Amino acid sequence: MRHIIGIRLQNEAGALSRVAVMFSSRGFNIESLSVAPTTDASVSRLTLVTIGADAVIQQIVSQLNKLVDVVSVDDMTSGEHVERELLLAKVQPGQDGPDHLRRYVQDCGGRVVESDAGGTIIELVGSEAAITSFLAALKSHATLLDVARSGTLGVSRR
Amino acid sequence: MRHIIGIRLQNEAGALSRVAVMFSSRGFNIESLSVAPTTDASVSRLTLVTIGADAVIQQIVSQLNKLVDVVSVDDMTSGEHVERELLLAKVQPGQDGPDHLRRYVQDCGGRVVESDAGGTIIELVGSEAAITSFLAALKSHATLLDVARSGTLGVSRR
Repeated sequence: MRHIIGIRLQNEAGALSRVAVMFSSRGFNIESLSVAPTTDASVSRLTLVTIGADAVIQQIVSQLNKLVDVVSVDDMTSGEHVERELLLAKVQPGQDGPDHLRRYVQDCGGRVVESDAGGTIIELVGSEAAITSFLAALKSHATLLDVARSGTLGVSRR
Repeated sequence: MRHIIGIRLQNEAGALSRVAVMFSSRGFNIESLSVAPTTDASVSRLTLVTIGADAVIQQIVSQLNKLVDVVSVDDMTSGEHVERELLLAKVQPGQDGPDHLRRYVQDCGGRVVESDAGGTIIELVGSEAAITSFLAALKSHATLLDVARSGTLGVSRR
């Protein structure tokens, strides 16, 4: 079962490592993770996606709540929430050329950030699944040179 | 000095913790971090922003390169690169109402994902600075209920 978890944590050196270790020490792989400042300078917000049995994840969530740096933990999986991910990719347009590629990217709801002889840089926002499909289809139109994904962000609807 | 570093690493439980510990054990705070899968199922790509003296960061980069899970490290700071961040925010529209808020968000280049009695969910892609400014200005138009940022993604132009 895929879990998407939002965590607020104090901006202390080591706070992120302690969260990451909580998963890795139990053999859980973190599928994706995004962490960035909030409007409160002392607190960061982290969104984490992991796959595991509900009961074990629930155990980890309750142990995360006990970490001194952790302000709050919200397992959004079960409730209504919105998920989005950002893709930033550098590609070399295929034989149909950069104009064809630009139209293709726009048709997919993405944007060409810039395009020159060195390559084309693309951005796209979508669900994790949409970005994975886009990347798979993009290979027919371009050669992927560098791909950076943000990992899934989530906010709860309730 | 702000550094933006791209790291490819093997998908092993603990790989992310080892990278995070490399920074925290030296007292460096990670400003933002994004990690997600690549098109190679065995490799994740991580973008990390940290602030510190160039010489010390260079030392960390060279030690990262020695970690067994690390495939490559690219400090993009010095070279030409493109940076983007994703914001996903849930807000309660201010007294001017949701339609005013929607226009405001669109004028800023953002998008309203959905809007109902429970609140309005907004997405925006921009530089770290642009998103920070947007959030500051947004407070005049809405009450922030939940804010998730992806952290900065970067791809090198070269």
